[in-house]
Amino acid sequence: MSTNPQLTPEGRLRHLLTIDGLPAEILLQILDTARSFISVTEREVKKVPLLRGRSIFNLFFEPSTRTRTTFEIAAKRLSADVVNLNIATSSQTKGETLLDTVANLSAMNADMFVVRHAQSGAAHLIARHVGPHIHVVNAGDGRHAHPTQALLDMFTIRHYKGGFDGLRVAIVGDVLHSRVARSEIHALTTLGVPEVRVIGPRTLIPVEVARLGVHVFHDMSAGLRDVDVVVMLRLQNERMDGALLPSAREYFKCYGLTAEKLALASPNAIVMHPGPMNRGIEIESSVADGAQSVILPQVTFGIAVRMAVMSILAGN
Amino acid sequence: MSTNPQLTPEGRLRHLLTIDGLPAEILLQILDTARSFISVTEREVKKVPLLRGRSIFNLFFEPSTRTRTTFEIAAKRLSADVVNLNIATSSQTKGETLLDTVANLSAMNADMFVVRHAQSGAAHLIARHVGPHIHVVNAGDGRHAHPTQALLDMFTIRHYKGGFDGLRVAIVGDVLHSRVARSEIHALTTLGVPEVRVIGPRTLIPVEVARLGVHVFHDMSAGLRDVDVVVMLRLQNERMDGALLPSAREYFKCYGLTAEKLALASPNAIVMHPGPMNRGIEIESSVADGAQSVILPQVTFGIAVRMAVMSILAGN
Amino acid sequence: MSTNPQLTPEGRLRHLLTIDGLPAEILLQILDTARSFISVTEREVKKVPLLRGRSIFNLFFEPSTRTRTTFEIAAKRLSADVVNLNIATSSQTKGETLLDTVANLSAMNADMFVVRHAQSGAAHLIARHVGPHIHVVNAGDGRHAHPTQALLDMFTIRHYKGGFDGLRVAIVGDVLHSRVARSEIHALTTLGVPEVRVIGPRTLIPVEVARLGVHVFHDMSAGLRDVDVVVMLRLQNERMDGALLPSAREYFKCYGLTAEKLALASPNAIVMHPGPMNRGIEIESSVADGAQSVILPQVTFGIAVRMAVMSILAGN
Repeated sequence: MSTNPQLTPEGRLRHLLTIDGLPAEILLQILDTARSFISVTEREVKKVPLLRGRSIFNLFFEPSTRTRTTFEIAAKRLSADVVNLNIATSSQTKGETLLDTVANLSAMNADMFVVRHAQSGAAHLIARHVGPHIHVVNAGDGRHAHPTQALLDMFTIRHYKGGFDGLRVAIVGDVLHSRVARSEIHALTTLGVPEVRVIGPRTLIPVEVARLGVHVFHDMSAGLRDVDVVVMLRLQNERMDGALLPSAREYFKCYGLTAEKLALASPNAIVMHPGPMNRGIEIESSVADGAQSVILPQVTFGIAVRMAVMSILAGN
Repeated sequence: MSTNPQLTPEGRLRHLLTIDGLPAEILLQILDTARSFISVTEREVKKVPLLRGRSIFNLFFEPSTRTRTTFEIAAKRLSADVVNLNIATSSQTKGETLLDTVANLSAMNADMFVVRHAQSGAAHLIARHVGPHIHVVNAGDGRHAHPTQALLDMFTIRHYKGGFDGLRVAIVGDVLHSRVARSEIHALTTLGVPEVRVIGPRTLIPVEVARLGVHVFHDMSAGLRDVDVVVMLRLQNERMDGALLPSAREYFKCYGLTAEKLALASPNAIVMHPGPMNRGIEIESSVADGAQSVILPQVTFGIAVRMAVMSILAGN
Repeated sequence: MSTNPQLTPEGRLRHLLTIDGLPAEILLQILDTARSFISVTEREVKKVPLLRGRSIFNLFFEPSTRTRTTFEIAAKRLSADVVNLNIATSSQTKGETLLDTVANLSAMNADMFVVRHAQSGAAHLIARHVGPHIHVVNAGDGRHAHPTQALLDMFTIRHYKGGFDGLRVAIVGDVLHSRVARSEIHALTTLGVPEVRVIGPRTLIPVEVARLGVHVFHDMSAGLRDVDVVVMLRLQNERMDGALLPSAREYFKCYGLTAEKLALASPNAIVMHPGPMNRGIEIESSVADGAQSVILPQVTFGIAVRMAVMSILAGN
């Protein structure tokens, strides 16, 4: 267990870099801690002093206002001091290396880095080089991982389904380019979901995905049949004019979630999406806003999950 | 009264979107509350715990460092947690709709949105779609309204003139494109100012302005005669090369406020400007910095007025 | 003494604009105060309430994420409210003058401005125009001064060398364009360092530097002999393709700090660099990361020094 760079020799969480390799107990510890923060975020005074005086740096090498905001809000509700660094426009352009930037910020007595980077592995690289008192949270690295998104999805599933036993979960869309999908599959498998399906066109399902123990479907109707949870992935605009995809219209026809297709799933199936949504491309508005959609609760739970991760890492 | 989207069924302020339709009692409640905050902003510890643990989002779809700063400072002095979102460079460009962005931020248990948008009506649209515990403040929408600017101007007038009875107020400049002018006229009228004048070239005074009960002047000397308050409007640079205006030099000659023209007003007249000023275009430096100018006190009062609005909306 | 714009008539620090003209007692007061903050920055709760409720504005007319971050962190650890203003993209472009921008922010009851500007003298100009209760810290103005960098370097030297008596200090590189070098020379001289050397090519050493009482060397080996402290300067990329410099490769050969050259210095010599480093241009990686490098401690001390400056200026 001590070979996992995310865990201390005693098996406690030191960094959150990827779901891959984390034991179920750690995932459940995060989900349980998050549950206790739900009530905090519903109060008028949405603040606990757990991380008072800690310095958290949001290191965004790739812009993402939405994700940065969730971490900023979570940190502030834990009473931490937060500094936002948009590094794309900063010293990286002055020729400084990533590791020098991080060493510098570490020397300011940082307690935690929340890292978003376009390159897979960036958060791991940083975690390998920071001092023993600094914690790293991966807020999305390239196509690799987005562990807090997977965790908030697990929180959402457990909240609506009561647990993970006996569930059928389908992940639909551009799995090839999705760090969300990778993290999601690892989390579902670790938490004991017996049947994970992946649905999408051949060009967007990587061949190695079958090795992760999931069932691959290219036909959406077949893939959705009797599932309890539908996780829609965002189709990134830049894919739509490439060779990997038919037109947006064609994509919607085959893999867009409509009320008609959703009717094939279990009647109590929930619909999830990590946002931001492309309405009319990967999801029909009537489904996004419909009774089975839990897309906005996902966001709410996401704050509590990020508070949980931060307080487990940097709390004492 | 319950048809006004800014008021609760009981007639209390729920959002601040526009001055239009707000009763005088609400305006006076804001001004009176602001007066109590003046002393806070003059202390060394410029902070009260009224909004501790509340989450306020500055949603700026149009950049405005100055206005954003006034709301940020006001919120911090009320001990709220503030998150700045510059949405122009954010998920809007990823194809997400305005309402999806707002729904998302709402799901993070936001308490208040301060909204600046280039399109008239944006703050109203948002207010119509947020949940019952979320408050919206319009920080300027297109040509439509800028209610906190109008309120701080009312505060300034009351501070220097002791009240609104018997006053003559002139608003000078580009009324056509000014959200400040619209909000100002509604506020002055509601608070009982008997004579509101509007001064400017025919091309920059909308025809419907007369319907608001104001007197229109195209000759500045006639319009300024015996007024107690002169409100200069900012002339936006982009107007100056258009067909609506003569040259900047010509404009200054006709509608720029000089010491000579100001001498036509009441000897105790005060001079106001919402900033940022174009010195030498709409106002002469000797007037901007002169004894009758209250332009900097407007800024100081503006913080107290924004604290008042926020604490009335989100306080309990 | 009262003619120094940085000091009150009683000789206390009112602004920190430049090291030039500050008496040794003031410099030592800052270093001593900084020492007391080192322990604060090492605690879990890295926060003291000294500036609670004070409003500090980071006015960056020139982007510098790194320097802005150090001041932001320092201010937050003193419990101040910090507002970041990136003015390049703001009202300056709306035609407002620098002094109007500052007057406006002052009217928001600011307590302190931390100013970074591409033009030499900008911080002085601002300091001359702010009200009596507002303090200005120069965070770098053109080629002129960067006093907090010099102070943190003095702190570092005193920390590792026990004092300033009997030291030989060499400053190496592009002295001509360096605000750091200018501030550094004034600080070293004021604190009684007996021998300050400046090393660099003729094109990058201004002729007037000899007047400051330093020894000029164009040969690095000669200049480094027996020094106790080596201060490397950053070579700005934009210089490298100009007429002032040979190629980067040639520069490194002559003025880059290698282990071999460093061996000429005193065996206990420390190596400093203000960052961000150009590895392989002004400094070899093995030296930057070597046993004699104190580059990262400089950063740590820099936070404590900025806390000291801010608390001396705005504390009571």
